[in-house]
Formats: sequence, C-alpha cells, structure tokens
Amino acid sequence: MSVKRAANFSAGPGVLPVEVLEKAREEMLSQAGSGMSVMEMSHRSKPYDAIQAAAEADARAFLGIPDSHAVLFLQGGASLQFTMIPKNLGGGADFVTTGSWGQKAIEAARLEGAAQEIWTGKADKFRSAPDLTALDRTEGAAYTHITLNETIQGVDYMTDPPADGTDWVCDMSSTIGSRKMDFSRYALVYAGAQKNIGPAGLTLVVIRKDLLERVPEGVPPMLDFRIQAENDSRYNTPPCWSIYMAGLVFRHWLDRGGIEAVEAANEAKAAVLYGAIDGSARFYRGHAVEANRSRMNVPFVLGDDSLTDPFLKEAKEHGFLELKGHRSVGGCRASIYNAQPAENVKALADFMADFAQRKG
Amino acid sequence: MSVKRAANFSAGPGVLPVEVLEKAREEMLSQAGSGMSVMEMSHRSKPYDAIQAAAEADARAFLGIPDSHAVLFLQGGASLQFTMIPKNLGGGADFVTTGSWGQKAIEAARLEGAAQEIWTGKADKFRSAPDLTALDRTEGAAYTHITLNETIQGVDYMTDPPADGTDWVCDMSSTIGSRKMDFSRYALVYAGAQKNIGPAGLTLVVIRKDLLERVPEGVPPMLDFRIQAENDSRYNTPPCWSIYMAGLVFRHWLDRGGIEAVEAANEAKAAVLYGAIDGSARFYRGHAVEANRSRMNVPFVLGDDSLTDPFLKEAKEHGFLELKGHRSVGGCRASIYNAQPAENVKALADFMADFAQRKG
Repeated sequence: MSVKRAANFSAGPGVLPVEVLEKAREEMLSQAGSGMSVMEMSHRSKPYDAIQAAAEADARAFLGIPDSHAVLFLQGGASLQFTMIPKNLGGGADFVTTGSWGQKAIEAARLEGAAQEIWTGKADKFRSAPDLTALDRTEGAAYTHITLNETIQGVDYMTDPPADGTDWVCDMSSTIGSRKMDFSRYALVYAGAQKNIGPAGLTLVVIRKDLLERVPEGVPPMLDFRIQAENDSRYNTPPCWSIYMAGLVFRHWLDRGGIEAVEAANEAKAAVLYGAIDGSARFYRGHAVEANRSRMNVPFVLGDDSLTDPFLKEAKEHGFLELKGHRSVGGCRASIYNAQPAENVKALADFMADFAQRKG
Repeated sequence: MSVKRAANFSAGPGVLPVEVLEKAREEMLSQAGSGMSVMEMSHRSKPYDAIQAAAEADARAFLGIPDSHAVLFLQGGASLQFTMIPKNLGGGADFVTTGSWGQKAIEAARLEGAAQEIWTGKADKFRSAPDLTALDRTEGAAYTHITLNETIQGVDYMTDPPADGTDWVCDMSSTIGSRKMDFSRYALVYAGAQKNIGPAGLTLVVIRKDLLERVPEGVPPMLDFRIQAENDSRYNTPPCWSIYMAGLVFRHWLDRGGIEAVEAANEAKAAVLYGAIDGSARFYRGHAVEANRSRMNVPFVLGDDSLTDPFLKEAKEHGFLELKGHRSVGGCRASIYNAQPAENVKALADFMADFAQRKG
C-alpha cells in the first residue's frame, strides 16, 4: 500500500523511520504470533519481557551504554526529570544554561533545594556553549547539569564533557543517538523519546549504578530511581508501546550500520542545510555560533523579517511542514533528526535557495 | 488480512477492541491524510489539536463528565497519582482501603503528610467494600479516597459515593467506563488507561475545577494539576499516541450504543463467568462477597488448590491467556474488560465447567 508521506521538520514529536512504522503496522493485531497487540500485553508476560529486554539490549548496543550504567524506561518526559533528579541526587547542584530547556531545568531544581547557575548564555540569546573544562565550579556541588543540545536554540556542545571526576548530569533529549557519545563520561543521561528514539510518553534514563545508592529515603516511589531500577522499570505498568517502538528504532539503526552510519548521515544532512544558510549571503542567518551548531535542530531567521511569514507560507505549500520557530523565539527552525530522509533536507535546501533568489 | 487473536484475560494492559486496532493500523503511516503517524506529529500542530480535542469530547460524552470538571491527560499511571493528589489537595485525608491498590495509595500519601485509614477490609482479605454513607469520618479531612474497583481482589462498590458534601477522590482505573457513573459525585477521578481506555502510559484525571484553586505554591510543575489544566495537558509533550488511541476507544463505544450498551454487555458477561463459579458446587470459589463482585476482574480459587496449576496449564493449552492470579494473592483471575468478546467469556465458562466435571 502506497502512502504519501509528509516532509516533516517537527522538533518533536518528530519523524520516525518509515520501516519502523511499517513493522508496527504489520504487528498491530498480533505481535510475533502472540495474537495480541503490544498495547494489550500484560507487562509481566513473557512476550512483553522479551520486548523490553530487546529494547534495552539494543539501546545499549546502539548508544554504547556500558554495564556500569542502568537503563530505565520512565514516563513524564525531560520535564519530570527536572524534578526527579534533584529529588534523587540531592540539591546544591551546578547548572550550565545554554538555552530554554536548561532554564526550565534549573527553575524546577530550585523548588527542590539550592541550585547554582555557574554559566549562562542568556546575554547572547543562547548562541553558544562553554568549554566544560574551564568552568568555575561550586565546591561540593552534588552534580553539574548540562543540556547537551538545546532544541529551541539549536546549540550543541558537539563533544562529551571531560572525564574530570565531575558527576555530569545531562539532558540529551534532542541529540541522543545522533552521534557517538561516551556514556562513561556521564553520571546520568536523560532523554524524552520523541525526537530520536520513539513516541512521546517515554523517557530514557541512563544512570551510573552507584548513584542509586545515593537516593534518600522518602522519595515518592514513582519518582525514585532506585525503586525503578530494582523493579526493571516496572514498579507499575510502564509505557509498553513506546518501549516497543523505541526498541524497533534502535534495531532499525543497528541493522543499518549503527551509530557511526547515523552520525555520518547526520553530518551530511546538516552540511546541506547549513550550506543553504551560509551560501545565502545572509538572506538566511543561523542562530548558533559555528562550533555549537546543532545537527538536529537548525533555527534560522530571514535577514528581512517581513519575509518570514511569506517564506513559511510558501514552504508549507511546497509540503515542508513544521518549519516555524518555537513560539518563544520566533523565526524558523528545521529539525532534521535521524529519521529525516536526506532527500527532504536536500529539497528544503533547494527551496530555500530558490526563495532567496526570487526575493533577495 | 486475517489474524488469529488470543483470548486474553490480562488484568492490564488488557484487550482492546479489534476495530480500534484496525483503525490504528490503517492510519499508521498517515493519519487523516496528514502524511504523518500520530507518533510523529508536533503536539502543537493543528492535526494533533484535533485529535486531543476529539479524545476529550468523546471521553466526556462516553463517560458522562460534566462541564464542572476538567479532563487531564497525564502520565505515570495511578501510582503517580498516589503522590500527586496529596501534593495538590493537601494532606490529612481519609482513606478507605478495599484492596492492594488502596494500600499503595495510602502508603504513598503518608510520604506527603498525614493520612488516616478510616476503614480497611484487610482482616477479611479484602472481600468487600463498606457502605460509604456510614463511615466514621475525620473532621476537616482534605478529601476521602476510595478505590472504586480493586483490580487484584475484584472488589467493586458497584455504586457511586453519596452526594453528601464530601470531596470523594477515586481510583477508577479498572472500572472506569464499565457502567454508568455519576461523575458529579466525585471531586477527582483518576484512572490508568491500560484497562478500559487505551494503552499504558496515559492516566486520565477528571477534577472538579474549583479544586484547581486549592493547589499550593511550589508543587513541581509536572505534578501540578493547575499547571496541567492551564496548559491543556501540554505543559510538556503529552503521550500523544495513547491519547489518540483512547479517543478511538471512546468513539468506538459511542458508535455502539454508548455506556448503557457497554454496561449491559458487561453485566451479561459477568453473569456467565460468575455463573460458572457459582454453578460448580464450590469446585471454584469467587473471592469477593456477592454485593461487591467486580464485573471487570474475577478472581477465584479452586477448592482443591492442588488443581490450580493443572487448571492454568490446561487453560493455556486451550488458548485462554493470563488467567493466573496476581503474584501477591495467587489463585486465578479472569479480567473481562469492555473489549473482552462475549464469546471468549462463554468459551472460558464452558472450559471451566468441563474441567470441573472431569476433575471434580
């Protein structure tokens, strides 16, 4: 059956691999001969055990998660992690703010106790990320929080934090799985699934196992990393369908060359899009400084802002969806996650060049 | 395409209407001509707006939720509500405990402040529910919590609480939508979706709007009912796919006679199964007292417990899945939610009669 698919540049929920959707469609009424949809399976059943175990194993293989770290499948998105992390790891943490999500993280942490902002890119409208080896750190901070890629500002460190003994805690929502990362550098990584992993409603948490011992008494059980780890993310019913879909996504990329192949494809796609921006004689202007340009989220403005609405309107007519910038910052943004086909990016770049030529 | 479907008696996640799964399958690569799966849509897009609006409208129509109450689509299951409710409505509440889930609710509430257990069925192994008009209440209690149907013990009040000015807070997870209820009697109703509503990973919360004004300052934003209501359940990315599926389920039943038709079908199915138990000369024994027998979860034991394992084994060979009782109580349990086909219940009853005749 042939279905016309959209050129979907949404920042999240975002585009998924069409082969994964086809597999989910095929198994909708009976997964692996069970006679049940994954949505109908007891989370304590053998068929579901196999699904969650495969999702974890494939997450470890695709992302490169070492045995020193536990993998948790939770709910509530990154926003609930903003609260859970200080509840579990303690207050008095350092925060590095490179965009809107980092701001939300420290705001929520302050409700749970002290939180120090040791760097912020706010004065420069969040265009860059600092050198993490040269930060002025707080003595005795419980951990240091970073947002590896800021989805709204398109600012990515493009490197892992240093192995300097710091417990780095990292919101990796919009860049996880986009390039090879060294998970041993992180004390805790969390990511809402709805960009590079799968459907909304699932949060992946990767936590160094010794941190589970730090969890104080009295944390509400659903918000307690130790309880979730001890129960294999099944203290209560987990978001089974989203975990299944995430497993299909990890398996999809493993079958196609793994993280190295994904990284190479992302580098090429980003080069095409930034090429269209840089080659436009400032008709289009990127937001982030070059060293911190995200390969996942590409925010840009038109040099003549009166052309923004006509650009978005015409783009939509050409079938390029969700190019409007986040309501908090305006302008335009193209999100080009792992599953974004290269031909969509090329077509968008061509359209941008054509529009610039006609209106510039 | 013909697919053999299982006879799935899981207590949750449980069976869904096959027509709903077929619709989801049909729309997997392109919902309503959008060229996107619902899993790929921005939660701020027009196509998704329409999906969530329809899900809420159909929830209101099917369940009979009045305008005085807000409908929230949240995450974390009933277990997170055990924590959210006292955080939002205050401590010092009264709890009525009719089974395992009620026990978990009061345990979590105690972490947030005082909580009084004003009735418990524990001494009798949770076989009954009390008369809610005759409880000994605590002066000034913030609210009174009940579990309308205990999934593990199969104990259901089979009636709404009295309109006596009490703020009744109710875990309705495993009985919501199974019979007509008067939502105006409840201050707050919550339900994990994975029994009668849709996939796991969605929690429906129905809250009387004036209670939103009671929420104190400083509640973590993701756990704050007022913030969730003000943001139309989209403070962050909601579980879009699960909301979509829930909408399809509500629409499915509305198109088939609504709650009255569902209630009549459930009554008939439960009569068949309890008939098999009651007609077995105590070969099978139900758990709950007759007045509180759940129509959704039917736990039973075999009079001769040495026959339990052979019964479960043979049932499985006949294709009856998930009949084992909850690991905390043992025995057997058949869950017969809205989407459980009547022919499955009849076939199970026939098998039970045959087994009893051969082994009794």
